[in-house]
Amino acid sequence: VTRVALDLLGGDDAPEAVVDGALLFADREPDVQLLLVGPVELAERLLAARGASGRLRLVGAREVVEMHEDPARAVRRKRDATVRVAARLVRDGEADAVVSVGSTGAAVAAALFTLGRLRGVTRPALAAVIPAAAGPLVFLDAGATTEATPELLAQFALAGAAFAEIRLGLPAPRVALLSIGAESGKGDDLRRAAHAALSALPVDFVGNVEGGDVPHGGRADVVVTDGFTGNVLAKGLEGAATMLMSVVQAALTSSPERADAARLLLPAVDEATGHMRPDALGGAVLLGVDGVVVVGHGASSAEGVASCVRVAVHSVREGLVPRVATALGELAEQRRTGDAVLIRTETA
Amino acid sequence: VTRVALDLLGGDDAPEAVVDGALLFADREPDVQLLLVGPVELAERLLAARGASGRLRLVGAREVVEMHEDPARAVRRKRDATVRVAARLVRDGEADAVVSVGSTGAAVAAALFTLGRLRGVTRPALAAVIPAAAGPLVFLDAGATTEATPELLAQFALAGAAFAEIRLGLPAPRVALLSIGAESGKGDDLRRAAHAALSALPVDFVGNVEGGDVPHGGRADVVVTDGFTGNVLAKGLEGAATMLMSVVQAALTSSPERADAARLLLPAVDEATGHMRPDALGGAVLLGVDGVVVVGHGASSAEGVASCVRVAVHSVREGLVPRVATALGELAEQRRTGDAVLIRTETA
Repeated sequence: VTRVALDLLGGDDAPEAVVDGALLFADREPDVQLLLVGPVELAERLLAARGASGRLRLVGAREVVEMHEDPARAVRRKRDATVRVAARLVRDGEADAVVSVGSTGAAVAAALFTLGRLRGVTRPALAAVIPAAAGPLVFLDAGATTEATPELLAQFALAGAAFAEIRLGLPAPRVALLSIGAESGKGDDLRRAAHAALSALPVDFVGNVEGGDVPHGGRADVVVTDGFTGNVLAKGLEGAATMLMSVVQAALTSSPERADAARLLLPAVDEATGHMRPDALGGAVLLGVDGVVVVGHGASSAEGVASCVRVAVHSVREGLVPRVATALGELAEQRRTGDAVLIRTETA
Repeated sequence: VTRVALDLLGGDDAPEAVVDGALLFADREPDVQLLLVGPVELAERLLAARGASGRLRLVGAREVVEMHEDPARAVRRKRDATVRVAARLVRDGEADAVVSVGSTGAAVAAALFTLGRLRGVTRPALAAVIPAAAGPLVFLDAGATTEATPELLAQFALAGAAFAEIRLGLPAPRVALLSIGAESGKGDDLRRAAHAALSALPVDFVGNVEGGDVPHGGRADVVVTDGFTGNVLAKGLEGAATMLMSVVQAALTSSPERADAARLLLPAVDEATGHMRPDALGGAVLLGVDGVVVVGHGASSAEGVASCVRVAVHSVREGLVPRVATALGELAEQRRTGDAVLIRTETA
């Protein structure tokens, strides 16, 4: 049985969306145990109102990290914050994964503070799945770490490749560096140095891709960037999608005749774009910490919460943490012993 | 009469798209003189094939900067490159503006090399207009300068505000800093320092915006970022738009019944999104150099080239260069004399 600790108070529609998502999932998967982490009487009231079965375990926690707070400071101060208690359950072996659709910063801080980093990890990265036209790709860092070095981007590349093997089911994912031109000399100083660092890793490094390659896809399975650029682009792509879909919907229903025709067509549009909705994607996974931590979109519905739980369960069962630990540990060992990293490219 | 020098050889569909764009524009605007800069016999042949009038002036230039070349090095080496000859016409007072839909790097290098920077400008910025849902906004730097400092972002903010006054017709544009959270403490070290620097400028600084605020718009008229992040986001947003529109189009025509209904609806979609097409936007303007330089999308059609010429003519007539020079010169003077910048906020 895989046990997932759910942050009851995180998210725009918490706690209702979290409870409903938990129930959606619990009904489908008998060999998963969900732990709702939050005020117990609140959870009991919500479950009773839904006539829910006793399949969910409740774990008490009374505090929440608000969006306006400094996440690291708030997590350190609030011993009883839901996301910190959830991470503690993983640390103590009472749960296998944390899922939160609350503050990303709080989830990252709680993971670092309570679970700690894996050996060889300088800073963690948040790996999102982008629904590119040519198929999904892993995109990291979507915003866990704002400062970057070439060495850090190399760590992200290894962790992202390990994650893509599991999440996308690819035996040898193609890894690319996000830059502003396809040639190795293009980009800022960080990218030029990172291009050399990624070339030396035991992964299938395919060179640079540009911003437009991320939504189109097809050139790489893993796209690596720093957490500032990654957060800006991930939010920008999502904003472009929601903006365009609302413009298109408004155009399709802008007159009675159009609305009639649109009734026939909107299901087709939904079908073609449905897999791109944040709710369908299942959240981003924090890589480099000693535990499975899934961070969903703040606007997640019950379906979105259930998708996050699905990703968490899959990551646990496929051994995400040991795989990332192996990849990063080997890199750290090479750095320590001074082995030329290039020697290891036969394992790529 | 406003004179615009057109790079005949730049762009995916050059030279045909450039000639056709020039003719489109020439037919509409009698008080604009267009100078086609490229191989004269090629230009003559293209014009003859179109039965074109003699309203275009031809200026000989035989070399072109290829996309794979290092732009700065290629421009320095190729004295006879079209984009460099075009910039020379502006420097020598024979033209008022340069338009190129070729390599952005080459246009930036030619402008720096031939026209030089305005006083108080450390590095130039490329200002694009983004068709946000709430209305167009100025976005810079879209990729002229890859390294950034807080001081440089402050220069971009002033130049971008001067440009927005002209391009968007706003007397007091709202200026924002692109970051990864709305609060002033959010972002990397560069953004935190830049937030303080922008707060001290004589502009209406409204604080941070996030990646998703750029396509949605409404929170700012000018969004300032470094050229690496700006290039990644601008290309990402364009890629998301082309990707989604092609997914939607495919869905709307995926069966005969749907195609029938779509015939009624596609014009509505085109109407709602037409102003977002790169061809309609008219190219980005390079700010901080001593001349008007407009850089269009490489995939520009004739309409796109004509839009770029329109932007160039408007920028010349509204005095873009002197306005940017005044804004940046005042900042440089304050820095030199040590005047507290805050004293000047009454001019905001």
